[in-house]
Amino acid sequence: MASINANFLKLKAGYLFPEIGRRVKAFTDSNPEGAAKLIRCGIGDVTEPLPEAVRKAMHEGVDEQGDAATFKGYGPEQGYEFLRQAIVDNQFADLGISADEVFISDGSKCDTGNILDIFGAGNTIAVTDPVYPVYVDTNVMAGNTGEGDANGAYEGLVYLPCTAENGFVADLPKEKVDLIYLCFPNNPTGTVATREQLKAWVDYAKANDSIILFDAAYEAFIQDPEIPRSIFEIEGAKDCCLEFRSFSKNGGFTGVRCAYTVIPKSVTGSTPDGTRIPLHQLWSRRHSTKFNGASYPVQKGAAAVFSAEGKAQVSALIEGYMTNAKLLREACQTAGLTVFGGENAPYVWVACPEGVSSWDMFDKMLNEANVVITPGAGFGSAGEGYFRISAFNSRKNVEEVCKRIAAAFA
Amino acid sequence: MASINANFLKLKAGYLFPEIGRRVKAFTDSNPEGAAKLIRCGIGDVTEPLPEAVRKAMHEGVDEQGDAATFKGYGPEQGYEFLRQAIVDNQFADLGISADEVFISDGSKCDTGNILDIFGAGNTIAVTDPVYPVYVDTNVMAGNTGEGDANGAYEGLVYLPCTAENGFVADLPKEKVDLIYLCFPNNPTGTVATREQLKAWVDYAKANDSIILFDAAYEAFIQDPEIPRSIFEIEGAKDCCLEFRSFSKNGGFTGVRCAYTVIPKSVTGSTPDGTRIPLHQLWSRRHSTKFNGASYPVQKGAAAVFSAEGKAQVSALIEGYMTNAKLLREACQTAGLTVFGGENAPYVWVACPEGVSSWDMFDKMLNEANVVITPGAGFGSAGEGYFRISAFNSRKNVEEVCKRIAAAFA
Repeated sequence: MASINANFLKLKAGYLFPEIGRRVKAFTDSNPEGAAKLIRCGIGDVTEPLPEAVRKAMHEGVDEQGDAATFKGYGPEQGYEFLRQAIVDNQFADLGISADEVFISDGSKCDTGNILDIFGAGNTIAVTDPVYPVYVDTNVMAGNTGEGDANGAYEGLVYLPCTAENGFVADLPKEKVDLIYLCFPNNPTGTVATREQLKAWVDYAKANDSIILFDAAYEAFIQDPEIPRSIFEIEGAKDCCLEFRSFSKNGGFTGVRCAYTVIPKSVTGSTPDGTRIPLHQLWSRRHSTKFNGASYPVQKGAAAVFSAEGKAQVSALIEGYMTNAKLLREACQTAGLTVFGGENAPYVWVACPEGVSSWDMFDKMLNEANVVITPGAGFGSAGEGYFRISAFNSRKNVEEVCKRIAAAFA
Repeated sequence: MASINANFLKLKAGYLFPEIGRRVKAFTDSNPEGAAKLIRCGIGDVTEPLPEAVRKAMHEGVDEQGDAATFKGYGPEQGYEFLRQAIVDNQFADLGISADEVFISDGSKCDTGNILDIFGAGNTIAVTDPVYPVYVDTNVMAGNTGEGDANGAYEGLVYLPCTAENGFVADLPKEKVDLIYLCFPNNPTGTVATREQLKAWVDYAKANDSIILFDAAYEAFIQDPEIPRSIFEIEGAKDCCLEFRSFSKNGGFTGVRCAYTVIPKSVTGSTPDGTRIPLHQLWSRRHSTKFNGASYPVQKGAAAVFSAEGKAQVSALIEGYMTNAKLLREACQTAGLTVFGGENAPYVWVACPEGVSSWDMFDKMLNEANVVITPGAGFGSAGEGYFRISAFNSRKNVEEVCKRIAAAFA
């Protein structure tokens, strides 16, 4: 009798976005006029074309596959040197990261999930609340939690509330935790952490022998030069931090798939007998055994993000989305709503009017404004009373959304 | 203190191909003349250009990403309907498989490794010997084995010897096992199983409530019309089998990355309390949570494998590699060696001369013929006394290898 991984059965049926999909479908099925006007500001998916420099490089990569002399079969599982080096030169210059500490993959969702393969059982794991659901669900699947409650909180995880009071940057845990997921700029709140705040986290990790899993997928959206773009800007981070990065949101790679994880060789974990093992060695083995490298034409395209043309084109994309964020912030403020985020991130985090739940707000925006937003409660119980608007959209759509927000709250 | 997954430390240092790489490097570093003449018939990687139909479709996919009207962001995690349906229509027609039972991924190595996510602890797991190392190593990493011995065999796994006596098709296990990895056409032996042999395996699985993980990555190389191409050609297989397939070896996608796994909705496993759960539901959830779909231009390219042009171009590739296999078989036979495989697979499995070990044979071929082969012992202890020659090479190289084999055994 083949036994299944029964931890999967602890997962709540509604991963957030399927539930949103269900409600949107019910609305569009019963309301063709509203369906035609529907604007989606829910899921954080880019909408603007892939930069020309990236497409040009991908075309070249495809053409190379057409000639036996330039054909590339299996590449290095950890990624091509040309891309790993370009990442270090452009993203981690002067931070002491070397190209062989960068592992190329086909997506940050994969990396943030698969990373649990290299950790053992029995770790105390901290996540923020609200949180990107993948961190939680992958821990449930790996057996690192108990059962979930009605709010979708799982026994055994340490939840760190992020609220208006702490500026949506979690306070340090009172207990000792072993693994900590941090995401800045934050998904879903769009907020950032200062250098001092990140320093406190790194100091905590060093003092408690814990590992920080730092998700910097939205780094490119940081506008404030004082805000760190990488955890490795913080002293001591190379002893206790991994960093996840992606081409999804800067280069518009959500459909093309490329990301990377930085694991300094100096970060170690423990065996049961206390032997220290570099995580780099474990992830390298994991990548070699369960992955066969990201697509070659895609890696070519990713490297082109760092060309002069690529940089200019990515900057223009970021600027466009950040102008969207500014318009959405202003529209919500004008409507009398309290707004967070959206200044260094493509997400605007909005407080619902007093007494309105986040799913009620979702339904109101869907039915009255024909706009899909994401209810804060879907990201955790501390997200109740908030909703997220994504700035990933065309300017035309964003301007229309702003008008509809004004109308809905008039 | 963050604890690591100490199961990783049970893994033997030499995953086969790194050890081959080490020996080849030592040879080429000390022998520039031999290095210049080196021909690699080791790793099973394609060498011929990606078919024109595939490249054309990939170019179109990249161009679509350049226009907001046709831009594709996140796709369905399980793959685009156009590709899932094309696979069913072309590969599983009349076998009762539906498109939503096909899960697109970025590679079979990933799928055959990641599939363990959905199984629980305590399963008895059978692998053949010799075996594709990924099946074993991923079970070690998942904690499904004890320690390894000097031959690389791990405590707790059931090894099923494949020998000349059983035609390299494993005999049914005497004990009850829960999960069974089968690979036909086989990597590394290049042998195939008859309909009757596969029927016996499916009957065993049904009688013992076990699951067969059937790897059909080399299906396209089958020449004999009597040999099943899919396990789903066998009655009852839809109750107890999964099948892994890939575009790597037919379409030449090793550098481009696309594969798929077929999980009929009727295949179930058990919870600890005996509740039956469809594996389809678990893998679907795994895919949604830890994967974000294969690259869109790559999926376009994969679908083009099934166009009229694509089929003709893939047929030409297969025919080329199978002619290579025939030439290699004949050269080995003429040299007085006993040969298996290579008639329905791109691998030729050759018995070493009496008393010569497979690593000695590797060194002889490297030093005397400047040809890289794969020593059978690297695939398991029953592989001792054999070596694998890959037919994935240009005709020119294969003809040269044949000459060198003749010279080495003159």
